[in-house]
Amino acid sequence: MSAAPPDGGVAPTTGLTHVDEHGKAHMVDVTGKEATYRIAEARCFVQTVASAEQISLTREGSDLLASARFAGIMAAKQTSALIPLCHSIRVHGVDVDVRSLPNGFAVAAVVAIIEKTGVEMEALTACTTAALVLIRAIWAVDPLASIEDLSLWHKSGGRSGTWNGQPTGDRS
Amino acid sequence: MSAAPPDGGVAPTTGLTHVDEHGKAHMVDVTGKEATYRIAEARCFVQTVASAEQISLTREGSDLLASARFAGIMAAKQTSALIPLCHSIRVHGVDVDVRSLPNGFAVAAVVAIIEKTGVEMEALTACTTAALVLIRAIWAVDPLASIEDLSLWHKSGGRSGTWNGQPTGDRS
Amino acid sequence: MSAAPPDGGVAPTTGLTHVDEHGKAHMVDVTGKEATYRIAEARCFVQTVASAEQISLTREGSDLLASARFAGIMAAKQTSALIPLCHSIRVHGVDVDVRSLPNGFAVAAVVAIIEKTGVEMEALTACTTAALVLIRAIWAVDPLASIEDLSLWHKSGGRSGTWNGQPTGDRS
Amino acid sequence: MSAAPPDGGVAPTTGLTHVDEHGKAHMVDVTGKEATYRIAEARCFVQTVASAEQISLTREGSDLLASARFAGIMAAKQTSALIPLCHSIRVHGVDVDVRSLPNGFAVAAVVAIIEKTGVEMEALTACTTAALVLIRAIWAVDPLASIEDLSLWHKSGGRSGTWNGQPTGDRS
Amino acid sequence: MSAAPPDGGVAPTTGLTHVDEHGKAHMVDVTGKEATYRIAEARCFVQTVASAEQISLTREGSDLLASARFAGIMAAKQTSALIPLCHSIRVHGVDVDVRSLPNGFAVAAVVAIIEKTGVEMEALTACTTAALVLIRAIWAVDPLASIEDLSLWHKSGGRSGTWNGQPTGDRS
Amino acid sequence: MSAAPPDGGVAPTTGLTHVDEHGKAHMVDVTGKEATYRIAEARCFVQTVASAEQISLTREGSDLLASARFAGIMAAKQTSALIPLCHSIRVHGVDVDVRSLPNGFAVAAVVAIIEKTGVEMEALTACTTAALVLIRAIWAVDPLASIEDLSLWHKSGGRSGTWNGQPTGDRS
Repeated sequence: MSAAPPDGGVAPTTGLTHVDEHGKAHMVDVTGKEATYRIAEARCFVQTVASAEQISLTREGSDLLASARFAGIMAAKQTSALIPLCHSIRVHGVDVDVRSLPNGFAVAAVVAIIEKTGVEMEALTACTTAALVLIRAIWAVDPLASIEDLSLWHKSGGRSGTWNGQPTGDRS
Repeated sequence: MSAAPPDGGVAPTTGLTHVDEHGKAHMVDVTGKEATYRIAEARCFVQTVASAEQISLTREGSDLLASARFAGIMAAKQTSALIPLCHSIRVHGVDVDVRSLPNGFAVAAVVAIIEKTGVEMEALTACTTAALVLIRAIWAVDPLASIEDLSLWHKSGGRSGTWNGQPTGDRS
Repeated sequence: MSAAPPDGGVAPTTGLTHVDEHGKAHMVDVTGKEATYRIAEARCFVQTVASAEQISLTREGSDLLASARFAGIMAAKQTSALIPLCHSIRVHGVDVDVRSLPNGFAVAAVVAIIEKTGVEMEALTACTTAALVLIRAIWAVDPLASIEDLSLWHKSGGRSGTWNGQPTGDRS
Repeated sequence: MSAAPPDGGVAPTTGLTHVDEHGKAHMVDVTGKEATYRIAEARCFVQTVASAEQISLTREGSDLLASARFAGIMAAKQTSALIPLCHSIRVHGVDVDVRSLPNGFAVAAVVAIIEKTGVEMEALTACTTAALVLIRAIWAVDPLASIEDLSLWHKSGGRSGTWNGQPTGDRS
Repeated sequence: MSAAPPDGGVAPTTGLTHVDEHGKAHMVDVTGKEATYRIAEARCFVQTVASAEQISLTREGSDLLASARFAGIMAAKQTSALIPLCHSIRVHGVDVDVRSLPNGFAVAAVVAIIEKTGVEMEALTACTTAALVLIRAIWAVDPLASIEDLSLWHKSGGRSGTWNGQPTGDRS
Repeated sequence: MSAAPPDGGVAPTTGLTHVDEHGKAHMVDVTGKEATYRIAEARCFVQTVASAEQISLTREGSDLLASARFAGIMAAKQTSALIPLCHSIRVHGVDVDVRSLPNGFAVAAVVAIIEKTGVEMEALTACTTAALVLIRAIWAVDPLASIEDLSLWHKSGGRSGTWNGQPTGDRS
C-alpha cells in the first residue's frame, strides 16, 4: 500500500460506489468534489392495520408525533455512525413531517447541507427512525404495522443535479 | 412531582405504551417485569428496479453484503441512542442475514437477550440499517430502490409469549 | 501494577470517591456491591427574566416542553459517555417533568434502576439536559435565563438508604 | 409537504427559535447565514456546603480538576447528540477553567468556532458537564452541593455581535 | 432464515470465533454462558525516541498522564461501539496505569466485570486509547514514537479460567 | 478567566502541544490555521504466534478482513470521541488495507481531509481498531498475538509539510 491518497472513489468496473476494483469497501475520497448546497427528501408510509379509532390518540400535538420528529432529527446527525461508509457531515437543517392518515402515517424528512457529498442517507435515516418510533408507539394496539415505500423522493444540488424519485405520483 | 418511582408504564386510557395518562412520553419503568430469554426477528425487502445484471456484483462474499451485516449488528447495539424511549440493554446475540434475490435483497435480523424488556426495536433497527446500507451501495445503478414490508416477524419470551407476524405467508 | 482486581473503591485517606490514595482517578470496582432497586431524583429551576407574556408560548403541549422531556430521557442513557468515571448501566425507567411557572420552569428527573451502583448522576444529567434545552429554546426572548439550584433531591436504595436533599423545603 | 428546503428558521409569530409557526420543532436551516468566527463563554458556580477542610483535597493539580476539564472539553464535542435541535459543528478550540474557592468551585468554559451557527450551547454543555463531574467527586463529603448561576456569560461573532451576560458584576 | 435463535457461536470448522460455518460474521449468542466475575489486563509500551529531557515534562501529576488515564477509562465503556462483534457490557471497574520510564511509557489497563462474556477487548481498547493519547501529546518532540507489545497480559474468570500472556517475563 | 479566545495553542515552555504553560490540558484553538488538504497514514503489524495453518481461514475475502476494514473506517469517524483533545473533523476519505502474511497481518490506514488540523490521530485510530478486530477474531487459536510497530508512517499537508516516519525501511 502506498501513501498515496485514496483514489477518486468511482469503482470503474462495478458501477457500484463504495466498492473498489477489488470488491473491497472504502470510504470514497470526496476531496475533489465541490461543496454545494444540497437537499434530499426521503419518504415512507407507516401502514397500520388496527382501526383508526384504536390509534386515534396519536393525534397531532401529542408527544407521540413530537417524539417521532425529534428522533428523526437526532438520527440525521448520527447517520455517519450508523452507515459505515458515510461521511460525517454538518447538517444545516432538518425538517421531519409526520402526518396522521386514516390507515397510517406519512413520514417525510428533508435535510439540507452545504458539503462535498450528498445528504441522501441523512434524509433516509431521519425518515426511517421517525417511522420506527411510530411503529414502537402503536405496538400495543397494532403489532402488524409495517414500514412501506421507504425511499428517496427528491434531491437537488451536486454534480447530478435535481432528481425526483416519483415525479408524477404521490404515495401518501 | 413526587419522588415516587415512575408508574408501571401502562397507559390505561390510551392503549398506547410510552404515553402516560396526560399524553406525555416517559420511559416505562420495567423494574417489576421478569428478566427472561427473549428473541425478536424483523424482516424487510429491498426492492430493486435495475436489472439483476446491473446489480450482479452485489453477490455473496463481496464486501457489500458483509457491510450490510456488520452495520446491522452494530446498529442493534445503538438502538437506545436512536429510539428515545427504548431502554439500553445488553444484546446477547445478533444475526443478520442478507440474501440476494433476482428483484432485490431479503434482509432478516434476529436478536436475542435476557432482559426485563423486549428486543423488538433492536431487531427492527438492525434490519433497517442493513437495508439502508444496501440502498446506498446500489445507489448509482438503482436510485429507485425502496425498502418494503419492514416489520416484526417473530418474537418469543416475555409476558406475551410467542407471536408471529405473518405465520402463514412469506414476504420474500 | 499487579493483575489483581482494582480495589474496593473507597479512598481511605481522602474521603473522596473515585480518587485513590495517590490522587489518581479510577472507575471504582462495584463488584462487591449488591444490586438493589435504586431511585434518584434531581431538580433544578430555569429562572427567566423576560416577562411571562414573552415566553407564554412555551405552554404545556407544545413541542418545546416535549423536546425538553425527550432530551432529558435520552441524556440519562448517555450519562456514562459524559461523566468519565460513571459506570454504564441499564436504566429501568426515566420520568422527566417540566412545569411552566410564572418566573421560569421547574424541572425534575426521576431515574429508577436495579444495579450495583447508584443512579444519581443519571438523574442529574437528565435534569440538566432538559434545562439546557429550555435555555436554548427561549434564547431569543430571554438570553439572561439561568439554571439555579441544580442538585440531587432524593435517593433511595443502596447501602446508604433513603436520603432527601431538602426534606422540609420546596425550591420551586 | 413539499420538497422545498426548510424555511429560514425564524418563527415569526412566537418569538421562539426552533419552533415553527405551527408550534412544531425543527432544526433551523442555517444555510443562509455567514460563517464567522464566534466565541461563547458559559459560567456556573458549584456551591459546596461542607467545610473547606473536608474538600481540601480537591486542590489544583489532582486528577479531580483535570477530570472536570477533560469531561467539559469532551462534552462540548457531544453537544449536538444531547440537544435535539443543535447543529453538529466542528469546535475549533475549547478551554475549561475550574477554580477551587473557599465555598465551592467556579467553572468557566470558552468555545471558539468558525461556523454559520453559534456556539453557545457548546459552551453551556461544557460548563455543565465539568460542574457535574465536580458534584459527583465531592459527593461523599458534600451531598448537598448544587450548581448555581449556570448561564451564558459572553458571546461574540455572528449577526447579533458581542453580548455580555453580566457586564458589570462577577458571580464568582 | 428461521426464527430460531442464533446458534451457540462456536464455529466448528474454522476454529475462529465470530465466524460461522459459512464464513459470515455474527455476534455470538452468549445466552447459555454463565455470568461470572471476570478480569482482564492488557499492556503495551509507548516507545519514545526523543531524549528523556525532551519529554521530561510528561511527569506524574501533570494533565498529560491524567488525560491518558481518563481516555482509557472512557474508551473501555465505548468498546462495543468500536469492535463490531463485541457485546455491550456494563463494566464494573477500570484501572488504567501509566508509568513514565526513561525510554517511554508503560501502560496497563485492568477491567473487571460480572458478565456472560469476557472483558478482554475492553482492557485492550482502554490500553490502546491511553497509549494513543500519549503518542499525540508528545508528538511535537517525538514524532517517531510507537506503540509496541500491545497484547493481553492476564485474564481470569469464565470457562477457560486464569490465563497469563507472559507469565515469566516482564515487557516493561 | 477572561472571555478572550483561547490562546494560539503552542505551549511555549514545554514543547508539548495540548498542555498550556500551567500544565493544564486544553483543546488548541486552530482558528488561525489554514484549511489545507492533509493526508496521514498509520501502520502496524499484528504478530501471530500460531502457525499459518491455524489461522489460514483468515484469508482475503472472508468476513474477517472485511470486518477489520469496516471497523477501521468507522473508528476514524469516532476519533474525536475517543481522544479527549482531538478536534471533531469531517473525514473526506478513508482507506484501510489489511494483508494476511505468513506470520501475521499488515495493517495500514490512510485518511484524507481538508481541515485546519491534522488527521494523524484519525489514521492511528483507524489502524489500531482494525488491528484490535483481528486480535479478537483469532483469539481462540492465537491468544498471544500482539500489535507491534503502531505508528505514523506518512503525513502531508499543513504547515509542517510532508513527513515520512520510516523513509528508508519497511516494517512489514
